[in-house]
Amino acid sequence: MADGEVTVKELVDAMAAFVEERDWQQFHAPKNLAMGIVIEAGELMEHFQWISEAESGALADDAEQMGAIKEEVADVLCYVLAIAERMGIDLSDAFYEKMKRNELKYPAEKYRGRYKL
Amino acid sequence: MADGEVTVKELVDAMAAFVEERDWQQFHAPKNLAMGIVIEAGELMEHFQWISEAESGALADDAEQMGAIKEEVADVLCYVLAIAERMGIDLSDAFYEKMKRNELKYPAEKYRGRYKL
Amino acid sequence: MADGEVTVKELVDAMAAFVEERDWQQFHAPKNLAMGIVIEAGELMEHFQWISEAESGALADDAEQMGAIKEEVADVLCYVLAIAERMGIDLSDAFYEKMKRNELKYPAEKYRGRYKL
Amino acid sequence: MADGEVTVKELVDAMAAFVEERDWQQFHAPKNLAMGIVIEAGELMEHFQWISEAESGALADDAEQMGAIKEEVADVLCYVLAIAERMGIDLSDAFYEKMKRNELKYPAEKYRGRYKL
Repeated sequence: MADGEVTVKELVDAMAAFVEERDWQQFHAPKNLAMGIVIEAGELMEHFQWISEAESGALADDAEQMGAIKEEVADVLCYVLAIAERMGIDLSDAFYEKMKRNELKYPAEKYRGRYKL
Repeated sequence: MADGEVTVKELVDAMAAFVEERDWQQFHAPKNLAMGIVIEAGELMEHFQWISEAESGALADDAEQMGAIKEEVADVLCYVLAIAERMGIDLSDAFYEKMKRNELKYPAEKYRGRYKL
Repeated sequence: MADGEVTVKELVDAMAAFVEERDWQQFHAPKNLAMGIVIEAGELMEHFQWISEAESGALADDAEQMGAIKEEVADVLCYVLAIAERMGIDLSDAFYEKMKRNELKYPAEKYRGRYKL
Repeated sequence: MADGEVTVKELVDAMAAFVEERDWQQFHAPKNLAMGIVIEAGELMEHFQWISEAESGALADDAEQMGAIKEEVADVLCYVLAIAERMGIDLSDAFYEKMKRNELKYPAEKYRGRYKL
């Protein structure tokens, strides 16, 4: 199943089912899930700690490392899906709202090629 | 646009378009994007630092705080989408693969109600 | 060597010597060292992810877990010492300055028993 | 007061006194303090997100930015001191123990100029 064939809700629901089958809602306080995002994101970041930006870009061609990186990204995503479900956040809605704010904050014509003015 | 109506690819593409319109690919090394996930996840976690798990669960009913929390979750998601696009990771594929591994690692009958044996 | 017998400078210098003996200054850009603090702090936090605040307090009496926790705290400290040395920050000076600001921001009589007003 | 004149214990005790004066021990569960380290370390890291390793090194000469960076490093240190005090960890002892392990794990002659073999 690839990104073009899967709705965001399908991912959220698959994660929720996994949690419910194990009766893990009791552990899934938003506080703990937010910690989970950070912990997994830290593990993802570890792959890039000692290499340059350019080298981190080149990792996309390193099949072995990409296996591990893909798994870390999935771990982060799992917690994002779980906290969204737990707190009643619609991720797509949150995303598009945020993008509207980003469009206003970073007008393309002003910020082209620069991340700050 | 709600989670049931949006494919994961649509989110990935919307994020990629935002980046491309600003010519920001040059800043979006995986190293920097992974840092972004952690930074935004830290800001999300800050909402829960001094409250208990139970209190963090109750925040779902606090409309004012949920506005900010929703925005932080969106910030995390933006970076997840960006790093996936940048590194050629299909998020749905990564997610379902990981869930298969999780099913094996945490069989429901053994882990029901417990996060460790 | 215990905290009462060691100056902060001795720790900073011991860390710097370790780095220099390995010619690791080249890797120790502040960017990478800041990543290191986060990564190690994430590993420390992992010990507390699924337990309550009260349970996390009780870990102080769990000799086995404390061995690992102590090591994670040391890992965080190593990176704090390294970035201080690398950027020319006197940690004690930074600490006392910050505490002065904290005293003004959180007057004891107003904040007694509460972390926000 | 500079690093050469201050023992680690003096910093730990100053932090503990600040907490006690506000009766904040009740909030200072190790779980919450570990979150604090990550949150503050994330804020520190934010200064380096969009710049290269080399540029991050050059920040040491940027007085204005160094003021903010110094404060973020102090914030991290505060939480490190607080969790050490709260969990009965002697930081110097933890540090020297860890350094011994690091000496064995990374023999200088093998790791000179390289962070992995």
